Amino acid sequence: MTAPSAVKAALSSQSIETPSWAYGNSGTRFKVFAQEGVPRDPWEKIDDAAQVQRHTGVAPVVALHIPWDKVDDYAALARHAEERGLRLGAINANVFQEDEYRLGSVCHPDAAVRRKALDHLFECVDIMDATGSRDLKLWFADGTNYPGQDDIRARQDRLAEALAAVYERLGEEQRLLLEYKFFEPAFYTTDVPDWGTAYAHCLKLGDRAEVVVDTGHHAPGTNIEFIVALLLREGKLGGFDFNSRFYADDDLMVGAADPFQLFRIMCEVVGGGGLGPGVAFMLDQCHNIEPKIPAIIRSVMNVQEATAKALLVDREALGAAQSAGDVLGANAVLMDAFNTDVRPLLAELRAESGLAPDPVAAYHRSGWAEQITENRKGGQQAGWGA
Amino acid sequence: MTAPSAVKAALSSQSIETPSWAYGNSGTRFKVFAQEGVPRDPWEKIDDAAQVQRHTGVAPVVALHIPWDKVDDYAALARHAEERGLRLGAINANVFQEDEYRLGSVCHPDAAVRRKALDHLFECVDIMDATGSRDLKLWFADGTNYPGQDDIRARQDRLAEALAAVYERLGEEQRLLLEYKFFEPAFYTTDVPDWGTAYAHCLKLGDRAEVVVDTGHHAPGTNIEFIVALLLREGKLGGFDFNSRFYADDDLMVGAADPFQLFRIMCEVVGGGGLGPGVAFMLDQCHNIEPKIPAIIRSVMNVQEATAKALLVDREALGAAQSAGDVLGANAVLMDAFNTDVRPLLAELRAESGLAPDPVAAYHRSGWAEQITENRKGGQQAGWGA
Amino acid sequence: MTAPSAVKAALSSQSIETPSWAYGNSGTRFKVFAQEGVPRDPWEKIDDAAQVQRHTGVAPVVALHIPWDKVDDYAALARHAEERGLRLGAINANVFQEDEYRLGSVCHPDAAVRRKALDHLFECVDIMDATGSRDLKLWFADGTNYPGQDDIRARQDRLAEALAAVYERLGEEQRLLLEYKFFEPAFYTTDVPDWGTAYAHCLKLGDRAEVVVDTGHHAPGTNIEFIVALLLREGKLGGFDFNSRFYADDDLMVGAADPFQLFRIMCEVVGGGGLGPGVAFMLDQCHNIEPKIPAIIRSVMNVQEATAKALLVDREALGAAQSAGDVLGANAVLMDAFNTDVRPLLAELRAESGLAPDPVAAYHRSGWAEQITENRKGGQQAGWGA
Amino acid sequence: MTAPSAVKAALSSQSIETPSWAYGNSGTRFKVFAQEGVPRDPWEKIDDAAQVQRHTGVAPVVALHIPWDKVDDYAALARHAEERGLRLGAINANVFQEDEYRLGSVCHPDAAVRRKALDHLFECVDIMDATGSRDLKLWFADGTNYPGQDDIRARQDRLAEALAAVYERLGEEQRLLLEYKFFEPAFYTTDVPDWGTAYAHCLKLGDRAEVVVDTGHHAPGTNIEFIVALLLREGKLGGFDFNSRFYADDDLMVGAADPFQLFRIMCEVVGGGGLGPGVAFMLDQCHNIEPKIPAIIRSVMNVQEATAKALLVDREALGAAQSAGDVLGANAVLMDAFNTDVRPLLAELRAESGLAPDPVAAYHRSGWAEQITENRKGGQQAGWGA
Repeated sequence: MTAPSAVKAALSSQSIETPSWAYGNSGTRFKVFAQEGVPRDPWEKIDDAAQVQRHTGVAPVVALHIPWDKVDDYAALARHAEERGLRLGAINANVFQEDEYRLGSVCHPDAAVRRKALDHLFECVDIMDATGSRDLKLWFADGTNYPGQDDIRARQDRLAEALAAVYERLGEEQRLLLEYKFFEPAFYTTDVPDWGTAYAHCLKLGDRAEVVVDTGHHAPGTNIEFIVALLLREGKLGGFDFNSRFYADDDLMVGAADPFQLFRIMCEVVGGGGLGPGVAFMLDQCHNIEPKIPAIIRSVMNVQEATAKALLVDREALGAAQSAGDVLGANAVLMDAFNTDVRPLLAELRAESGLAPDPVAAYHRSGWAEQITENRKGGQQAGWGA
Repeated sequence: MTAPSAVKAALSSQSIETPSWAYGNSGTRFKVFAQEGVPRDPWEKIDDAAQVQRHTGVAPVVALHIPWDKVDDYAALARHAEERGLRLGAINANVFQEDEYRLGSVCHPDAAVRRKALDHLFECVDIMDATGSRDLKLWFADGTNYPGQDDIRARQDRLAEALAAVYERLGEEQRLLLEYKFFEPAFYTTDVPDWGTAYAHCLKLGDRAEVVVDTGHHAPGTNIEFIVALLLREGKLGGFDFNSRFYADDDLMVGAADPFQLFRIMCEVVGGGGLGPGVAFMLDQCHNIEPKIPAIIRSVMNVQEATAKALLVDREALGAAQSAGDVLGANAVLMDAFNTDVRPLLAELRAESGLAPDPVAAYHRSGWAEQITENRKGGQQAGWGA
Repeated sequence: MTAPSAVKAALSSQSIETPSWAYGNSGTRFKVFAQEGVPRDPWEKIDDAAQVQRHTGVAPVVALHIPWDKVDDYAALARHAEERGLRLGAINANVFQEDEYRLGSVCHPDAAVRRKALDHLFECVDIMDATGSRDLKLWFADGTNYPGQDDIRARQDRLAEALAAVYERLGEEQRLLLEYKFFEPAFYTTDVPDWGTAYAHCLKLGDRAEVVVDTGHHAPGTNIEFIVALLLREGKLGGFDFNSRFYADDDLMVGAADPFQLFRIMCEVVGGGGLGPGVAFMLDQCHNIEPKIPAIIRSVMNVQEATAKALLVDREALGAAQSAGDVLGANAVLMDAFNTDVRPLLAELRAESGLAPDPVAAYHRSGWAEQITENRKGGQQAGWGA
Repeated sequence: MTAPSAVKAALSSQSIETPSWAYGNSGTRFKVFAQEGVPRDPWEKIDDAAQVQRHTGVAPVVALHIPWDKVDDYAALARHAEERGLRLGAINANVFQEDEYRLGSVCHPDAAVRRKALDHLFECVDIMDATGSRDLKLWFADGTNYPGQDDIRARQDRLAEALAAVYERLGEEQRLLLEYKFFEPAFYTTDVPDWGTAYAHCLKLGDRAEVVVDTGHHAPGTNIEFIVALLLREGKLGGFDFNSRFYADDDLMVGAADPFQLFRIMCEVVGGGGLGPGVAFMLDQCHNIEPKIPAIIRSVMNVQEATAKALLVDREALGAAQSAGDVLGANAVLMDAFNTDVRPLLAELRAESGLAPDPVAAYHRSGWAEQITENRKGGQQAGWGA
């Protein structure tokens, strides 16, 4: 096994990006259950994100979602973050929540709607310029519900046109991250349904266009770590939207549904050289029934534990068993790392950085939950606004 | 093949129940797109349902959803329906849209919440008494999102207790229809996830407890017609919630995603003697992006066409081929009926009843859409209120 | 957490049943790869099973498959087992490998084929009488490939008739275990496709008919621990066929694909009182590309590790968090047990019983693999004979 | 709707390729049921294929599978085909049925095994030279069963190297068709699991490398027509392996499980200009329980009927409704074509070509089945030899 000190060094360099919207209310089409103390605006979301960073030490970045996080002064928001030990991360565009988008946004049959959507994407790049964000994350809800509803191929043409226009608009240090999703909210076709479609578009756009893997956006049974390995081999893995699922896009806490899968994904990341800054480790979750801040702390810890286990894999022994065709031996090397309890090692790492060994317990002790419950009365709680 | 006259006679006896909520707005967790002319209250929903009946002639029943269709005077609502050639159908209980139900309703760990939910179910039975409805349709959103969150078995005990109390409360002519659903809105366990669970509970309740098959509520690949055949054999098929799906519970127009599956289901219904009043043929759909009334008309027609094809199956030839072990011959008999274009036969049937041959075209000619767009301005459009 | 001594005591009482056929060759429809040293007959299979027991100490039972394990003298086979510290377990009937069974066995449209199948089932009961086996495990490959091919309901009638005849034939101490399977080898309908169907039949048969859960026989996304909890609650869980899967019925080593799922299943077993003799913990696996004996040792260890973790769950804390509606707290209690490395505890337990701490390493040191490679040359290797 | 004469003209140009192996025995891992009259060698397979062509008139090509169809003189085999109105189609390589391929072929960790596999691929190109075949169809069973077993990325490198070597070896008029498959026979990773992987490799190889879509090789819920539309847009659709499935890779008769899906696929083919010679319409099926020749005739008819319906789609009306955002109108245009009974039109088309209107009935009248049952006694029936 890898030496604990090397594991700790590698872990210290990891940085996890939490999503502003996960601090707000979310739900299913059946019901959004309100919770006490939920932020009313982006400033309060960042205050909550600072708590996650305070107790975990590895979550110094917050992603924004526009227009949910629209403010008058993005530079001020960036300063607000900075003062709390955070920086602003990916800008997530939203072209699915206005009535014009009923039949799509950049793939819509009507050029006027496409133009409106494109303008929003340009606005997001403007915001990136103001916040210093590197990544523009594009997820399109575009698709169709009924066979025949629209022309699959024509929609691809429209998509390609919009992506090219946005890519053109990006600065040299900025990236376009294209996310794919198997289905939802469209139920027959989705215009970017799989990694292959996202990859094909990114390939044509250029080096600064890369694919985002949302771990909840695949068909049942899909081998996600395989996709991760492929994209890393092609130099096209831009980042992750982490969460977990039992069925569809459940958006549960990452690692909650299948911790072994998360470990396997991190093994490919580590093995493929993806643990550097080129791959953004973002969360994209919904805490519909559980309190949000501790759920996000737990999620950050889950990513960290999986990363630690992946770092522990004895790569030399693994490679030797693989080369020898020793099926059970190679599998045993992997499982040995997975079966190791890395919590003591992570507690040590935290202690070395002056953090409490158990971030969730530390959060509960901190009184923050009581404080926001008290202070955030009145106003309109932040949410998806669906 | 069966004689067209016999097919027409059987079709004339079929009655399809449309859901009041399908006339209102609906959407996904990402967005509810408002449409023009949508009803503002149950009275207007019934007005729309009357249009479906007017043009199809086989949809004389409307199901209600409480509290979405709460009115002061249910007898008046029943008269409103009757004056429009309709009657009120199943009462659908809703125990998933109040903040108390965050962790479930009748399966909730807290007895006070369970009591509240049970009171609502009793209220629904009171409404049935007032409307003359035969069926209480129970779908529970109950479940858990995370492993360990609650005790699976204890929740079954609570469920059984609530069902027994409701069953006890029913009149002699009233039925309890228990619906199962694979997942959503709960993402780890669902307390009634499959027909087996619903069946086991109904068996213990008694003869007037039966299972509802929602065609969108199954795991990928599930053979629904098999379940239909089994439940009919056990005398436990209470009805259908028809819709169609490509992925999860998409709630698309029935027959839109897999018309061959709908035909196979209707073949089992016809073959198993389910085409009588004991099986309720209900729709349960969401018309998120398409206009609602013509979508419901189309859905009713799709059920009717599938039924017509199922009635056309040459049962004698089918039985002979099956007994002889003639795989291709038996399959060919079934496919012969499916491949038949039954639209001319249905046009004839409508003409014989004084209806226009093409219900959708007739609806469009009727001017109703323009009329409601004009008249239903202002007010709060009906919807799920999630 | 539960005290280690209590965990060890409970673990000592567990007994895992290995399948004779897993020691022989197996493969996919594309290829059966032969391996060196594979047994040529049931006697040699039992010799291999004895090695698994020798190194793990918790696998003293071997299941037989008839006719693959047909011998002239079953009492002699039982003695052969006993001399090696084993006893014979479930008798698995095979009514799918003769040309007459092309369209099914007990559900076949032709009464003569049904009679032939039933005679085989009776023969299996005779063998049980000779071997002292308690359980008759029935898995039927019956089903259809094409819509219309046969009558779903008539096949259920035939199935019910056959099951009743077999049940009638059983002795007072013998059980009928009915296994369900989602699909394969039939591709359109399967006559016992889900737990609901198996349960409904067992219910009518009587107390000594129970359901077997094969962990690889479900639709994608099915919550298996839910089914386990339900069957335990109904007193109808007869046992498991353990294995693991990523896609269909992959028959990989149990715990290899989703160790967290295996843990959750064992949590329900422990919580539902299923860790006694009433539930048979059987393996049903195919080691197509890996050496068979160490794969089975690993599988036994995987079940044991999952059981240990399930026993470690702090039930009191779990119950308290569940009652309080503390979603994250309850989940954390469960995860705490799962994240614990139980390998040291199991090594201790083995040492206390005079076993080597690492059964796989001990097997490799034993020289058995080399011995059988040398001694089992010539002859016909055992396999499925498809 | 399109004029029937134009539909007939387009249909006359379609040519469907039947697979030699579908005339031989096949089965599942549980059992291969032998049938009477099955061919014993490639010459007899071609005799059977000639019957399919004789009665359908649109199946003049037969694909070969090496080594199952190995003969001493391929030119003689080509003449044998030609004398029966057929020509030889794609050469299908088989690098999965020798013991060396237990851990893969071109992706195997051992260079010697990779070399052996590559030599076989070269041999297939030699055979193409001899038979005049245009297409080399490559499907690799390569993959792994257990996490850690081998390095995902290293296997991609090996795959890329082998593909490049084969591509290099092809003549100017020859193509490499790369097939992907979701899973089976490998159960954890498959080295070419999806269209994206196949596409990425073909892109690097060059213009004469294209993707094959086997309709049974996708994850549950995958929208296959979307992939077809994308590949046509990219100029990378080399052909189809048609069959149908309810669950995994069931290899049932094409159109048997979901005729509406087959229609939608053919709509994309027609709309995307794929109905020319550039796309090979191949069958790849297993007739495990039904007689093979009539099953293949039925399959050819199913493709033809779906094509006819796709040609009937009123493209002008469809485009108008799509542009106008008329969801229900556009869907109705598509469904109108699907609901049309095209069997009379196809009967006419056959009559115009001097064929019997019902190919299956004509086959049964021909006496061929009785003749081969009588003449093909003794010898070794052809099969997969797994």
